[in-house]
Amino acid sequence: MDPRVREHAEVLVDWSARVERGDDVVLSVAEGAHDLAVAVAATLGERGANLLATYDSDEVLRAYLTSHDGGFEADPAHERGLIENADVYLRLGGGRNTSAMADLPGETRQAYSRAREGLREARMATDWVSTVHPTRSLAQQAGMAYEEYREFAYSAILRDWESLAEEMAEMKELLDEGSEVRLEKEGTDLTMSIEGRTAVNSAASVVYDSHNLPSGEVFTAPYDTEGEVFFDVPMTINGKRLQDVSLVFEDGEVVDHSAGANEDELTTILNTDEGARYLGELGIGMNRGIDRFTDNVLFDEKMGDTVHLAVGRAYDACLPEDEEGNKSAVHVDMITDVSEDSVLEVDGRVVQRNGTFRWEEGFEG
Amino acid sequence: MDPRVREHAEVLVDWSARVERGDDVVLSVAEGAHDLAVAVAATLGERGANLLATYDSDEVLRAYLTSHDGGFEADPAHERGLIENADVYLRLGGGRNTSAMADLPGETRQAYSRAREGLREARMATDWVSTVHPTRSLAQQAGMAYEEYREFAYSAILRDWESLAEEMAEMKELLDEGSEVRLEKEGTDLTMSIEGRTAVNSAASVVYDSHNLPSGEVFTAPYDTEGEVFFDVPMTINGKRLQDVSLVFEDGEVVDHSAGANEDELTTILNTDEGARYLGELGIGMNRGIDRFTDNVLFDEKMGDTVHLAVGRAYDACLPEDEEGNKSAVHVDMITDVSEDSVLEVDGRVVQRNGTFRWEEGFEG
Repeated sequence: MDPRVREHAEVLVDWSARVERGDDVVLSVAEGAHDLAVAVAATLGERGANLLATYDSDEVLRAYLTSHDGGFEADPAHERGLIENADVYLRLGGGRNTSAMADLPGETRQAYSRAREGLREARMATDWVSTVHPTRSLAQQAGMAYEEYREFAYSAILRDWESLAEEMAEMKELLDEGSEVRLEKEGTDLTMSIEGRTAVNSAASVVYDSHNLPSGEVFTAPYDTEGEVFFDVPMTINGKRLQDVSLVFEDGEVVDHSAGANEDELTTILNTDEGARYLGELGIGMNRGIDRFTDNVLFDEKMGDTVHLAVGRAYDACLPEDEEGNKSAVHVDMITDVSEDSVLEVDGRVVQRNGTFRWEEGFEG
Repeated sequence: MDPRVREHAEVLVDWSARVERGDDVVLSVAEGAHDLAVAVAATLGERGANLLATYDSDEVLRAYLTSHDGGFEADPAHERGLIENADVYLRLGGGRNTSAMADLPGETRQAYSRAREGLREARMATDWVSTVHPTRSLAQQAGMAYEEYREFAYSAILRDWESLAEEMAEMKELLDEGSEVRLEKEGTDLTMSIEGRTAVNSAASVVYDSHNLPSGEVFTAPYDTEGEVFFDVPMTINGKRLQDVSLVFEDGEVVDHSAGANEDELTTILNTDEGARYLGELGIGMNRGIDRFTDNVLFDEKMGDTVHLAVGRAYDACLPEDEEGNKSAVHVDMITDVSEDSVLEVDGRVVQRNGTFRWEEGFEG
């Protein structure tokens, strides 16, 4: 086995999820993630954790959803019993076909997603971490050779996370102290309130309230969003490629939207529920180890020269204890390239211009 | 997809497990069983059942067990929460290498098996069914070409189960009314008490207390076993090929044992716990659709000209309500060929001679 697979497993189990002896671990295995699952199982065995693996195959799910009449039961007791008793939930993504569910009707997907909202909340109450095994299918989506893609993925995943966490602490401080964020670039003039919200220093570990591996972003939960925003980074969502998305916000709500491709899919997402038309996340990419877009949000949204916004669910870690934040069955990230002709301000102070942060060399205030 | 895969899924879900709308179903998927899992998921969707798939990969389990120090936790809460709340448990066997766990120390396997006894009991309290997807690995173990093996497997699985159930009812009646079974052939002269025990007409459906697909056997739970028995059908158990096994019983207990190959593995099994040295099952194969040994107990033990005995756990369905029967963490079936020079008697009356049942043409009392 490629030693990087074993290293990946160790970063996931030890740095990210902080698994300890006796932890009840659910290991969610995508169709193409077998090798990583083997390595993670070995690491979990070494730590003395309790392992149960689930098979999260897109093809199995598509078959199930396609033949179901759509009256999905909320919170099946068996899955609820599994998740509620789990300490740790490790999701190993990496399928064999990123379009495996492309022909599923949006309404079916939505109905299923709504029925599973309780399960999702329960999963997010565990020490959950989502990562991805670099598969040929993901390489294809990225337009890269398999070995080239593996280099790319492991350089993003196998980082010095402690040192990156220190770098990101500065951005977290700016956001925690700030009240309003403004983003300006072509097709974009957006303001959001972040007053009272707590930013997450997303250093790929549950101890930082960070649940993605790789990570390398600082994010918070904005509200009272006003203005328009243009997302120029293409992305595949639910098997559909969304491109050149524009959203217009009034009083925090999306009141107009368009997309250069698959606008229907965007409409479906925004119509999932009320919360799907409000922002749940503002994230600032700070992982300079990710050097190109690969049409995979797990990587793209962490890239150094990007800012992303998500419609839908806000993460609890960003919210004061007495506030609910935005609720939704969806959380869909959309990314904008800020490497050129862009300004990110916090309370009128420029924090990032043309991709360069204020503490970086070459910054022009 | 081969239409037989879909038919297999339908027999499993409808005839075997009797799945109904709203049932919480655990679908256990072996490494090579993906296609069957897709077909079963489609069928479960049609029936409106709730699906959770587990990934039961031998390689994942081997990695976990190999690196674990052996102090396994009994009854992890997350797995317990899953199984206890499941209505139906469907096990889709069929890996990619029947020797995937061949290098696991017997003690590790035993310790793990002991720790999971509670989970096993909980699983057996569901409407569980175990079947197998015909894989290349299983074809190889059977010494058959892939397509040849698929023909073999589907002819055993896609039968007229209702009509076979009627045939088997006669054998069940003989065993239910009988007190003592005697088996005689080369190297074998064994008597067992079956007084008070109930035979199962194993017609591959939970409504018959039958949990294997294919099935086609009648079995009961014997006790007070005396004498010796020789198992000439080779079988791979825990990745090891056992051959020419002899067991000697006194007062129900195995007091002497030998094997022509891998005797150590046999010793390990018998040393699992106290119950591992007592019989848990006597089974009479009656599926004439299975026309050869393929080194897979799921098929071999159902074959028309065979009798099998299992050391270890007895099935509750065979026991009076106030009796516990034999308890063990293991249930290991061993098979003897009764096609020639053999006699099976119930209370001194010949029931099968040289493979021919008393109600079949050519029977010589």
